[in-house]
Amino acid sequence: MKKILIMNGPNLCLLGTREPGIYGSETLDDICRRLELEAKELGAELGFFTSNCEGELIDALHAARGVYDSVVFNAGAYTHYSYAIRDAISAIGIPVIEVHMSNVAAREEFRHTSVISAVCRGTVCGFGSYSYSMALRAAAEIL
Amino acid sequence: MKKILIMNGPNLCLLGTREPGIYGSETLDDICRRLELEAKELGAELGFFTSNCEGELIDALHAARGVYDSVVFNAGAYTHYSYAIRDAISAIGIPVIEVHMSNVAAREEFRHTSVISAVCRGTVCGFGSYSYSMALRAAAEIL
Amino acid sequence: MKKILIMNGPNLCLLGTREPGIYGSETLDDICRRLELEAKELGAELGFFTSNCEGELIDALHAARGVYDSVVFNAGAYTHYSYAIRDAISAIGIPVIEVHMSNVAAREEFRHTSVISAVCRGTVCGFGSYSYSMALRAAAEIL
Amino acid sequence: MKKILIMNGPNLCLLGTREPGIYGSETLDDICRRLELEAKELGAELGFFTSNCEGELIDALHAARGVYDSVVFNAGAYTHYSYAIRDAISAIGIPVIEVHMSNVAAREEFRHTSVISAVCRGTVCGFGSYSYSMALRAAAEIL
Amino acid sequence: MKKILIMNGPNLCLLGTREPGIYGSETLDDICRRLELEAKELGAELGFFTSNCEGELIDALHAARGVYDSVVFNAGAYTHYSYAIRDAISAIGIPVIEVHMSNVAAREEFRHTSVISAVCRGTVCGFGSYSYSMALRAAAEIL
Amino acid sequence: MKKILIMNGPNLCLLGTREPGIYGSETLDDICRRLELEAKELGAELGFFTSNCEGELIDALHAARGVYDSVVFNAGAYTHYSYAIRDAISAIGIPVIEVHMSNVAAREEFRHTSVISAVCRGTVCGFGSYSYSMALRAAAEIL
Amino acid sequence: MKKILIMNGPNLCLLGTREPGIYGSETLDDICRRLELEAKELGAELGFFTSNCEGELIDALHAARGVYDSVVFNAGAYTHYSYAIRDAISAIGIPVIEVHMSNVAAREEFRHTSVISAVCRGTVCGFGSYSYSMALRAAAEIL
Amino acid sequence: MKKILIMNGPNLCLLGTREPGIYGSETLDDICRRLELEAKELGAELGFFTSNCEGELIDALHAARGVYDSVVFNAGAYTHYSYAIRDAISAIGIPVIEVHMSNVAAREEFRHTSVISAVCRGTVCGFGSYSYSMALRAAAEIL
Amino acid sequence: MKKILIMNGPNLCLLGTREPGIYGSETLDDICRRLELEAKELGAELGFFTSNCEGELIDALHAARGVYDSVVFNAGAYTHYSYAIRDAISAIGIPVIEVHMSNVAAREEFRHTSVISAVCRGTVCGFGSYSYSMALRAAAEIL
Amino acid sequence: MKKILIMNGPNLCLLGTREPGIYGSETLDDICRRLELEAKELGAELGFFTSNCEGELIDALHAARGVYDSVVFNAGAYTHYSYAIRDAISAIGIPVIEVHMSNVAAREEFRHTSVISAVCRGTVCGFGSYSYSMALRAAAEIL
Amino acid sequence: MKKILIMNGPNLCLLGTREPGIYGSETLDDICRRLELEAKELGAELGFFTSNCEGELIDALHAARGVYDSVVFNAGAYTHYSYAIRDAISAIGIPVIEVHMSNVAAREEFRHTSVISAVCRGTVCGFGSYSYSMALRAAAEIL
Amino acid sequence: MKKILIMNGPNLCLLGTREPGIYGSETLDDICRRLELEAKELGAELGFFTSNCEGELIDALHAARGVYDSVVFNAGAYTHYSYAIRDAISAIGIPVIEVHMSNVAAREEFRHTSVISAVCRGTVCGFGSYSYSMALRAAAEIL
Repeated sequence: MKKILIMNGPNLCLLGTREPGIYGSETLDDICRRLELEAKELGAELGFFTSNCEGELIDALHAARGVYDSVVFNAGAYTHYSYAIRDAISAIGIPVIEVHMSNVAAREEFRHTSVISAVCRGTVCGFGSYSYSMALRAAAEIL
Repeated sequence: MKKILIMNGPNLCLLGTREPGIYGSETLDDICRRLELEAKELGAELGFFTSNCEGELIDALHAARGVYDSVVFNAGAYTHYSYAIRDAISAIGIPVIEVHMSNVAAREEFRHTSVISAVCRGTVCGFGSYSYSMALRAAAEIL
Repeated sequence: MKKILIMNGPNLCLLGTREPGIYGSETLDDICRRLELEAKELGAELGFFTSNCEGELIDALHAARGVYDSVVFNAGAYTHYSYAIRDAISAIGIPVIEVHMSNVAAREEFRHTSVISAVCRGTVCGFGSYSYSMALRAAAEIL
Repeated sequence: MKKILIMNGPNLCLLGTREPGIYGSETLDDICRRLELEAKELGAELGFFTSNCEGELIDALHAARGVYDSVVFNAGAYTHYSYAIRDAISAIGIPVIEVHMSNVAAREEFRHTSVISAVCRGTVCGFGSYSYSMALRAAAEIL
Repeated sequence: MKKILIMNGPNLCLLGTREPGIYGSETLDDICRRLELEAKELGAELGFFTSNCEGELIDALHAARGVYDSVVFNAGAYTHYSYAIRDAISAIGIPVIEVHMSNVAAREEFRHTSVISAVCRGTVCGFGSYSYSMALRAAAEIL
Repeated sequence: MKKILIMNGPNLCLLGTREPGIYGSETLDDICRRLELEAKELGAELGFFTSNCEGELIDALHAARGVYDSVVFNAGAYTHYSYAIRDAISAIGIPVIEVHMSNVAAREEFRHTSVISAVCRGTVCGFGSYSYSMALRAAAEIL
Repeated sequence: MKKILIMNGPNLCLLGTREPGIYGSETLDDICRRLELEAKELGAELGFFTSNCEGELIDALHAARGVYDSVVFNAGAYTHYSYAIRDAISAIGIPVIEVHMSNVAAREEFRHTSVISAVCRGTVCGFGSYSYSMALRAAAEIL
Repeated sequence: MKKILIMNGPNLCLLGTREPGIYGSETLDDICRRLELEAKELGAELGFFTSNCEGELIDALHAARGVYDSVVFNAGAYTHYSYAIRDAISAIGIPVIEVHMSNVAAREEFRHTSVISAVCRGTVCGFGSYSYSMALRAAAEIL
Repeated sequence: MKKILIMNGPNLCLLGTREPGIYGSETLDDICRRLELEAKELGAELGFFTSNCEGELIDALHAARGVYDSVVFNAGAYTHYSYAIRDAISAIGIPVIEVHMSNVAAREEFRHTSVISAVCRGTVCGFGSYSYSMALRAAAEIL
Repeated sequence: MKKILIMNGPNLCLLGTREPGIYGSETLDDICRRLELEAKELGAELGFFTSNCEGELIDALHAARGVYDSVVFNAGAYTHYSYAIRDAISAIGIPVIEVHMSNVAAREEFRHTSVISAVCRGTVCGFGSYSYSMALRAAAEIL
Repeated sequence: MKKILIMNGPNLCLLGTREPGIYGSETLDDICRRLELEAKELGAELGFFTSNCEGELIDALHAARGVYDSVVFNAGAYTHYSYAIRDAISAIGIPVIEVHMSNVAAREEFRHTSVISAVCRGTVCGFGSYSYSMALRAAAEIL
Repeated sequence: MKKILIMNGPNLCLLGTREPGIYGSETLDDICRRLELEAKELGAELGFFTSNCEGELIDALHAARGVYDSVVFNAGAYTHYSYAIRDAISAIGIPVIEVHMSNVAAREEFRHTSVISAVCRGTVCGFGSYSYSMALRAAAEIL
């Protein structure tokens, strides 16, 4: 049975309360519960880790080695400048899928650059919370 | 029943024969046949259009209005400079999903810029031919 | 009697149906009919060519040599990157007037650059479909 | 009867004597007299203001509120850097048409940027003194 | 016997009539006839393909696989922005030689960048129509 | 008793009538009257100078030497390019406080650069007309 | 009674000991005690949070929702690159005032960019520890 | 007898009082008196014009036509952005010599660009007030 | 006896397991043990601090004041963007030596910029784990 | 009989021993001997000059005036920054052909810029040592 | 008696024969002889050094210490990139005057940057060979 | 016994006399004598080469092949632009260690770029003349 870690970075704990025009009204808990149901159907087991702290996200990536088969990661704004997270992703040797709920290309200039994409396996963005579902399925079926 | 158009831009007709290290050995036909099976399961109907010509791709996008509910589009290298295709996408008022087989962020600098992302609904890239399957499912289930 | 070619590039065939907030509700046909009336008053004869294809637009510019006295050209998004069209304009030796309906300077960054302006005779932009009328009159009266 | 203000910025008072290869031999007075004749035909009344001073041009734009229906403005070299004039144009709430006699896109790099275009209604450039006539007609007929 | 395809992109069909100060008065046909004579001496067989359309040039590159041993290609202005042609060149696995008649480095800034050079075998530019002869000989003798 | 000069640059005389969504409905006179009341409470004496002309603003800065203890200065759009005003500020040896009513960082790109900040004592921006009050109090209490 | 949170980011705990030429000899405690006195006069209640850790600063911003009416925030060097803090500020829906003691525009190039200004209510910088007093008063009086 | 106009732009009237470490303690009057003596020796006649106002400097350049044989011009900070003054210089057809007292290349980045050098006859900078003497002599002897 | 702090930033705890082609197979513990032996020979005493968290690294730098004579610091990827760490280094007044195991100049573009070098005493990079030994010796012998 | 100078710049004396993967195993002497044979067939006479020193290469270009009819020049890395060599080429009035063995466009970024191309007659690159043969033939036949 | 060294860099030995449209027909010897006459009148003694080699120019600057009171230096194209010459100038502690015959600001883009100006005492450019005379006089009279 | 070449580029022969605030008062000879003593202790034999000439430095690098085991190289200002030296370093196949006495990152912008680092084995900078000692030891112990 595949084990998949769902990681969320800064400000994603506010989902459902933050700028609902962009992010919808589902909370992060709502999403996680739904993903667990979907994981069951796909025969996968999920873990979850959420933090606003760059260092803790790196710790969690390190800890995933030997425990998880792949990571579905919404790194929030760290996506755009955290070379430390980038190094962690390329160091752990587990496939990581980059996820964004909003279409980052249609928002502010600074969101057009991802410093982690190049070391991730692939990217899904713009489908709201369904982006996680797509990434989860990819993790379960092909990685 | 949803109707979804699978569009492929320049050089994608060479899939399976072109740089298999990057693109795999499946041909575009192989992929399309597989997508049709998947579409059936999802209760969707597919159309296909493939061309190396920017103008014909624009024509096809125009023609999709009133016929298709959404478009899954791998614009190939036009992704990186065709503002004409961008205008077509934003003009037709049908949700378009941008698809790439390779992880473009891990390749040449010029592939890091997409001039169409901002007017697409979302983007899937890096999962090989499975990128199409993910986009197809998104088109069938949420758009 | 002066002969003037009215050329329209990608996506302009959608006029009247595409983003009416920016482009108004007149169709390209409406505009062409009105221009023909205006041409008559000015004692000029019009030809029309519209295509989404960069290559066909170049073909048409070539074909205009020896047939038309001047060209009124809305190159759509090709304005911003088609050096091939630029070369065609400078090669044919007929004065070409660049036309835009919207005020491109007030829109996305990429529309602020025209690669064809430098080889056109002049530019008219921002007056909606009346931009064509202004260019037509200039072609008829001073070129 | 429409009232239209013809404004001219720095160095345009030298027209007819300055670089005739670029600007022709008509003086600014010649042009203004011709525009007055054209305005009569169009049923419009003209005012004129010419200054080399950025501050006076701003004063004149302010003073145009409540007096003129639109402004035809050749801002000369201020076009390329005067954000103060830009602010004045967007503040006064009267449509302003940007005019250039030469094809600025075919000249020095610094002339390729206009900081006022985005807040003007439209732009006419490259038709010599006929650029003013085109703008005047647009002001009289559609604004 | 080696088979070599001579390809010409946008506006090159105007050779001999377009800006003779830059391109000379030989027509493209004159050049092709001369190249055929030279090919005979070199024991090579030539094919020719000329088009203004990016998509057709890509089609022709695809079609060259299995038919030609190498391609001598003057991509005209597509040289400077057609990543789609670049992809075609790198996809087909036949050596392509980039050719320019004029010394592009001595002309406009935009001509200083070639997006196809990196995937071509080599480049010859600045020798007028003799550039083709040099490339032909290289194709015949060393590729 | 401290003497403080309140200076206002281009287009600020339009306050209350210009883009009230950004600048509010108070006129510059309203603001100045209120500042005079506040100055009395702070035991300071005010002078006022307003002009659209860069040169007159420089003259006024020069004239402030030996007369005023500090200057509260909203340089309007000159903020973004007037190195001449910058030189005047650094030349006069009186502390100058830069003031903006709107949050310039949240507006157009060109407003993100201030060429005068580096030679001012400090900056206050984004608090509407209250920005002046804050600067006035700083001038009265700490400079 | 208004509740205002005074937040301080990295290295500000060193105030009074770090580069006194730039930051003065007051410690952060000295400043906080003085601000409390000023807050009393203004009828406001203060909270304080200081951390060197980006993630903890984001946590604190989140926690401020429903507790504080506004935030006075000196984000230290995070000002220049923390898009995660920027997102937190725009997510929490409480007005945040950006504060800097030094005149950042007069220091190193990297300090000229603030990635948080655009989502703050306003900015005060350059007045030493008095910058906090100005921001506090603004928070108490107008927000 | 040659007639030479000595022009001085913004803030130069403060010479002798402004940043003497950079500009020395001579006033502009001292310099002008000295230049008059030197002009006499060279058999030249001088005129003087000094203004902080860009527009007045342009007016003065226009007025110099037909009166002066050449201009020695320290445009102060306008040197770095006034394309309007640049146009005036190239329009009047009199040789203009650009003068700076300080070594602008050794100062702030923005002073490294002169937008007027390209249309001046030559430049002298870095020799303090002696720069004027050098330019005056050049104007008298070779222009 | 000199006291020297050996600090290691993000992902360095993975040494020996991460990309051995770049970083070798020694673990961080191996290196630290070896450094302790070397320190003894040099008559120095070592402390160690390793964290993935930017804030904790700043805390540790602050805590080093009054305890250590110098710091040998491999800041990992924070090297390239952490202005907060830079400020901490320049604030604490202890000499800090920047260390990298790999030759950062020969790797990805983003690793070519160090935002901390300018405030460190010196830099050693490219010698594998021996870089630490070199920095340690420099700290022990000359700082 | 035409006289042609074969010039080689820095590090080319190492040919055959330096990075054979890029440059092949032929030594510069091998190449020169082969070129002499080819020159004989073409009825041309060759001279050779090789140096690692920019100044000596300039001296040699100067000395070529009046002696050689053209120059075939591989300037090595000086190609990318030696404006002094560029000036020498444009000063001597003899046609110079730029040659590179490797396809510089496919190598490091800095090799994509040639500061001498614009003043050379033409360029040949990417054909290994055969690049010299092509240039030699061009020099012999058309210059 | 002052001793002044006249130094000339690459390609200046060709003066009189190279591009006379830009540089006139005087040879470098002509200029030097004239400068010697002028030096006598000024009571100065001259030395001369001319080389195409960057290293020899640096050697000569070093050798000037203790021998010459100042240097008049036309560094030719090295002006635009030789940081080694820049270091030599700032190292020797003798005032150096930068000289150019042509108006470099009116020529190619690359000539607009001088890497040595910032460490020279001053600059004279655009006056043909008279630039040397101006610099010589400055060296003799004020340095 | 290892043989190590100590190479010094432009202006380093002035050490001890040039800007002692940056470089100290030791002469290059002092340093070399000290390095020889250190080399003896390390069981290594040294060679020395110093030149201001880029070409001679390249010659010396070439000559080091087969003679020296490694090179310790302070390339002075050539570090920042000499791609010819870079090519020499990568061509000779001997490990080269880049050395700088000053902390180049804390000095002028142009010193922040090294074009040779990427092809050197490693870099030591900022430790004054002790930088050489560190590099020497590295060369002796690990290369």
